[in-house]
Amino acid sequence: MYPNCIKDIIEAFKDLPGIGEKTAERLAFSLINFDKDKLTSFSDAITAVRDKIKYCTICGNITDEDKCSICNDKNRNDKIIFVVEKAKDISLFEKINVFNCRYHVLGGLISPLDGIGPEDVNIDSLIKRIDNDNVEEIILSLKPSIEGETTMQYIKKVLDGKNVRVTRIATGIPMGTDIEYIDAMTLEFALDGRKDI
Amino acid sequence: MYPNCIKDIIEAFKDLPGIGEKTAERLAFSLINFDKDKLTSFSDAITAVRDKIKYCTICGNITDEDKCSICNDKNRNDKIIFVVEKAKDISLFEKINVFNCRYHVLGGLISPLDGIGPEDVNIDSLIKRIDNDNVEEIILSLKPSIEGETTMQYIKKVLDGKNVRVTRIATGIPMGTDIEYIDAMTLEFALDGRKDI
Repeated sequence: MYPNCIKDIIEAFKDLPGIGEKTAERLAFSLINFDKDKLTSFSDAITAVRDKIKYCTICGNITDEDKCSICNDKNRNDKIIFVVEKAKDISLFEKINVFNCRYHVLGGLISPLDGIGPEDVNIDSLIKRIDNDNVEEIILSLKPSIEGETTMQYIKKVLDGKNVRVTRIATGIPMGTDIEYIDAMTLEFALDGRKDI
Repeated sequence: MYPNCIKDIIEAFKDLPGIGEKTAERLAFSLINFDKDKLTSFSDAITAVRDKIKYCTICGNITDEDKCSICNDKNRNDKIIFVVEKAKDISLFEKINVFNCRYHVLGGLISPLDGIGPEDVNIDSLIKRIDNDNVEEIILSLKPSIEGETTMQYIKKVLDGKNVRVTRIATGIPMGTDIEYIDAMTLEFALDGRKDI
């Protein structure tokens, strides 16, 4: 019923996460009202992702050069490394901008059930950085899940005996959330991490 | 902080309706995991919209040919025309597929406050079709709003004296909606359109 070019763009949008048939149709039709220059930039932006995106040779962040902008930044605190699962997670910490330190992207979490072992995530390169750069603390900022816990425990173990502090961000009740909606495990972590006021 | 190609695609996604900063970021990062062929098709689909989309010379529907697939379809009932605001609205009626008739896309609604007069929407071509094709009924399927009502009243007026039935789809309570959430005007229309059971 739709012209082919509309069918194609609907299919393309449907490949994106969280975009179903109806939203894909709405987005596709919105493009019809874009001016031609905007459509050209949109299309170019996608081919740029295809042709230019690389992973930083140091931290695994996405970049369009060999080293990412954070690893290239001379004004960062080298002593602390945030260890995150995905490149996107970096932006969350950059937005709150408290530590101005370095990052390391694992690119995944250890998950034996899915056949993802320690060798499949960027842990070796993390250890190398810790050894070479006199890192004082790594802050594990991973999802509190079975995979996240496994990965944190593994990293803790392989760093055992090295002179580096290994911390993890707190698990607890998110701001503004009613306790009745919180699962038992989170509640346990939150209790365990209670603070004097 | 992001590489330029990611910044560009985030901006492109943000131009789409209903896509804010956070969703745009999520969509942009999802593209990184697409394989190159998929990115090529995505980009090509957008340039195809740019280069191929035209408006059907008869009904105003979008098409990649001179006449849209519906106007080209010989098995349609010529006697009834659904009058819709946007090309996208056609798909809603095609999905329920009751009438198998023709369509006419106004491309907008009359809105004196926004400077949109009858000459800015495709009403002339509608009248021409009614005159030439012996149309028996037009079903006005427009949004029940000030602009929709104005447009419906205008069309009714210009067709006065012609041998064509002018109907409008019912305004009322949508299925599954609690009456307490319905505005007074809709309720009035629903009362007015009440039926014996």
